[in-house]
Amino acid sequence: MTDIQELIRDLTAFRNERDWNQFHNPKDLALAINIEAGELLELYLWKHAEEANVEKVKEELADILSFALLLADKYKLDVKQIVQDKIKKNGEKYPVDKAKGTAKKYDEL
Amino acid sequence: MTDIQELIRDLTAFRNERDWNQFHNPKDLALAINIEAGELLELYLWKHAEEANVEKVKEELADILSFALLLADKYKLDVKQIVQDKIKKNGEKYPVDKAKGTAKKYDEL
Amino acid sequence: MTDIQELIRDLTAFRNERDWNQFHNPKDLALAINIEAGELLELYLWKHAEEANVEKVKEELADILSFALLLADKYKLDVKQIVQDKIKKNGEKYPVDKAKGTAKKYDEL
Amino acid sequence: MTDIQELIRDLTAFRNERDWNQFHNPKDLALAINIEAGELLELYLWKHAEEANVEKVKEELADILSFALLLADKYKLDVKQIVQDKIKKNGEKYPVDKAKGTAKKYDEL
Repeated sequence: MTDIQELIRDLTAFRNERDWNQFHNPKDLALAINIEAGELLELYLWKHAEEANVEKVKEELADILSFALLLADKYKLDVKQIVQDKIKKNGEKYPVDKAKGTAKKYDEL
Repeated sequence: MTDIQELIRDLTAFRNERDWNQFHNPKDLALAINIEAGELLELYLWKHAEEANVEKVKEELADILSFALLLADKYKLDVKQIVQDKIKKNGEKYPVDKAKGTAKKYDEL
Repeated sequence: MTDIQELIRDLTAFRNERDWNQFHNPKDLALAINIEAGELLELYLWKHAEEANVEKVKEELADILSFALLLADKYKLDVKQIVQDKIKKNGEKYPVDKAKGTAKKYDEL
Repeated sequence: MTDIQELIRDLTAFRNERDWNQFHNPKDLALAINIEAGELLELYLWKHAEEANVEKVKEELADILSFALLLADKYKLDVKQIVQDKIKKNGEKYPVDKAKGTAKKYDEL
């Protein structure tokens, strides 16, 4: 069992013990990710990047990852595979010779 | 090397080849997570949960996970540990006997 | 007719001509606001505040305001009133003598 | 003075009394809009559209509108104008004969 599989096992066990699967449709899981992402963002509001409270960042990041893994599990996605597929696709959108050192979007390169 | 470590290695290699570390401060990574979360949410807009395009969900979910892992790496966090710590903490906020079968927030239980 | 009433009239006319009221339940309108907010945020990603494209900011801000006004209209809220009520409430959370010159949240003042 | 101008006057007065203009750069205002949008979204999480607490919706909607108006004011935008311009632009992207009764995005019409 990989560490990602282990986390999904722990998260779904937590959910199932509370009989929460009935609420966890993909749309609401997408809402949950956005809500947690907003809570993470709040830790940086009106601040410089280095001023955020790292203990709180840990918790919000954990929440985002948790709902992302639960959503991946809903669709039975292979998390490692979808991330590696996206890295490959991004490599085509952002070839090193064009994208190096610039933060421009691919359609402005 | 675990799955998570492997993904972080691939993501940071992709970033470093493009010399993008200069842009990837924690605050902007938090912005990136929110932007990608919004793109995921759009796949469910005006729709029932089961109507989303799963191929696109894969990509947006991969983007969210990628920026979340890059942010975790910035702070040198142990991803498995922070998720398991949060599950434990949530277990205290949502004890099974109170939380079972209800979607209420912990402060309304 | 006030400016706000005029905008709500124009927005609901646009919606009704397209028979979109059927999709515009409050939950999906809240999703739409988040999606547009994410698109606004993208205009600042990896950038300093003054580097955003103002023409694009106008459009994203207009989208956010439009869905916010449509949601207010769903509940028949008086937009001017709810904003002024919130200003008053925030005045109690952030009294001038405590909040002046600091970006701290009210629970940290 | 229109009602939008009146709200902007009240919001900037509140801000200035607290000497908060120093924190209110456009990028952080865009963050604030996203954070408040996430708080609005939370009121619908795991729920049907009609189950949200309307009193709380009022407050979150007021927060979103407030930061949107403050951001518009930063760029000295004419709020009524930018919304009406966007309605016109959307009319071209979503002509009635193609868009009527469908929730499809303009690039799928």
